[in-house]
Amino acid sequence: MFYTIDILGTIAFAISGVLVAFSKRMDPFGILIIAFVTAVGGGTLRDILIGETPVTWMKNMTYVYVILASTIFAVLFRRKLDYLRTSLLLFDTIGIGLYTIVGVEKGLNAELHPIICIALGTMSACFGGVIRDILCNEIPVIFRKEIYATACIIGGLSYFILRKFPLDYNVVFIISGIVVIVIRLLAVRFKISLPSLYDDDETFN
Amino acid sequence: MFYTIDILGTIAFAISGVLVAFSKRMDPFGILIIAFVTAVGGGTLRDILIGETPVTWMKNMTYVYVILASTIFAVLFRRKLDYLRTSLLLFDTIGIGLYTIVGVEKGLNAELHPIICIALGTMSACFGGVIRDILCNEIPVIFRKEIYATACIIGGLSYFILRKFPLDYNVVFIISGIVVIVIRLLAVRFKISLPSLYDDDETFN
Amino acid sequence: MFYTIDILGTIAFAISGVLVAFSKRMDPFGILIIAFVTAVGGGTLRDILIGETPVTWMKNMTYVYVILASTIFAVLFRRKLDYLRTSLLLFDTIGIGLYTIVGVEKGLNAELHPIICIALGTMSACFGGVIRDILCNEIPVIFRKEIYATACIIGGLSYFILRKFPLDYNVVFIISGIVVIVIRLLAVRFKISLPSLYDDDETFN
Repeated sequence: MFYTIDILGTIAFAISGVLVAFSKRMDPFGILIIAFVTAVGGGTLRDILIGETPVTWMKNMTYVYVILASTIFAVLFRRKLDYLRTSLLLFDTIGIGLYTIVGVEKGLNAELHPIICIALGTMSACFGGVIRDILCNEIPVIFRKEIYATACIIGGLSYFILRKFPLDYNVVFIISGIVVIVIRLLAVRFKISLPSLYDDDETFN
Repeated sequence: MFYTIDILGTIAFAISGVLVAFSKRMDPFGILIIAFVTAVGGGTLRDILIGETPVTWMKNMTYVYVILASTIFAVLFRRKLDYLRTSLLLFDTIGIGLYTIVGVEKGLNAELHPIICIALGTMSACFGGVIRDILCNEIPVIFRKEIYATACIIGGLSYFILRKFPLDYNVVFIISGIVVIVIRLLAVRFKISLPSLYDDDETFN
Repeated sequence: MFYTIDILGTIAFAISGVLVAFSKRMDPFGILIIAFVTAVGGGTLRDILIGETPVTWMKNMTYVYVILASTIFAVLFRRKLDYLRTSLLLFDTIGIGLYTIVGVEKGLNAELHPIICIALGTMSACFGGVIRDILCNEIPVIFRKEIYATACIIGGLSYFILRKFPLDYNVVFIISGIVVIVIRLLAVRFKISLPSLYDDDETFN
């Protein structure tokens, strides 16, 4: 089941990459690369930092095929993707929930401190989007206006809190993943963002 | 012989870095760094992803000396580099041909899937330029308008097709490298680019 | 003692990250990430390139706590940081002096060539700032107008020259670190920069 969720997350990330690449009028190769780094960038950075190489997507071709197929799909149906906006948000949100907890567990396997594990989980979930924005010459969107990384951090914390209780391993995994998903969806639904540190209200693009 | 070609490619990449750094009015140190990452960036990313560390250029000083010398040369003769434009294109093209196939073979040594090997080859050839453009705050040029990565991908495919025939190893290496070079030169000569996905003709810078 | 200096450097780097993130109007999470990468980015790149993983900051929580505390401090007292400008420059300068020599020694431990060791030292000291500027969508400041990396390179050279003399190990370490610090402070004090390669005087932002 986790595996299916992982694929849904990969699809959502790849399509979000295609959409950004489109807005920058990239050529087909550029679009594919942006789709790819958005989908695997976070996990790649995590693997490199803990020294788990060759990195995950090099050892499991499923990711490559899913990203290729999603990219072709998104390019062909680019004018109709608006109808999928809600599904994509849902996939993406489920994706970051799963990626966060997978990243936390990779950190635990490498015997790292809980705070580092939470950082690795957040990175796995969020840095694909960061690399996408850098390649597209934008300030990463998650640094500016969304409860996104914050949801991952809270989900990671939940994981370590729940582990202290006599719960089944799968239960801990699922509940903390759901924490990420619920926070993110509530933030989107009610347009919640982190408190501003700036005095005025002008938005900065 | 391969080694000589490698050096020619390194020279061309370094000089292309100097030219971009110049257009951004960087200081001498900045110029050197941009020359360096353009020349070794692709191979470095490849080595990090497959876990072959310390990365190649740290273990063979020839690259460092060649890049230093090329940078000094390009800075001193910067007003005359226009006369070298054709030679530079040729060196660069030979360089990506060679880098692609070297990258493919590194992937094979790490026992990775052919598609991943082709990706590694393309990365070795192209990502030096991508990192150069990111450091110079530009959207990477290869994502936007050139048959460049596409030539590498086709060259990598040729390598795997040729391997199925009873050919000498060196012949496979050379022919697939030449495939990259010929496609790239034809694309430049006849101004071929990937088909546009956009309705209008305006160019986007 | 080295350890205390290291912490001072980390504080200065983190605060410099907060200041840049502020000028880009990032949200609290973005500010924390920029503070983090500014402080640990150079050492992380160094560790990845030589294959020393998990990278340093993942194995020693002190860095994480110091960066968290510095970020909170800088956010709370952001309107008063101007009074600290001189102290921050001093911390930052001491930090790059130390980071340079630590990087050089990591290279020596990995049995790399002196030139590569100096490059690793310079990278440790300077690339946190480079990654900070890339994430904030700026051309890295050290490529454009400051004697900064140059001070690190000269300090690294001093280390290898001093090693040829019958000096105590700690003396070599301290003197070459001081070389970095003195050059940097003199350059700031007398507004020295690398000679311009451009004909006119216009500044380029």
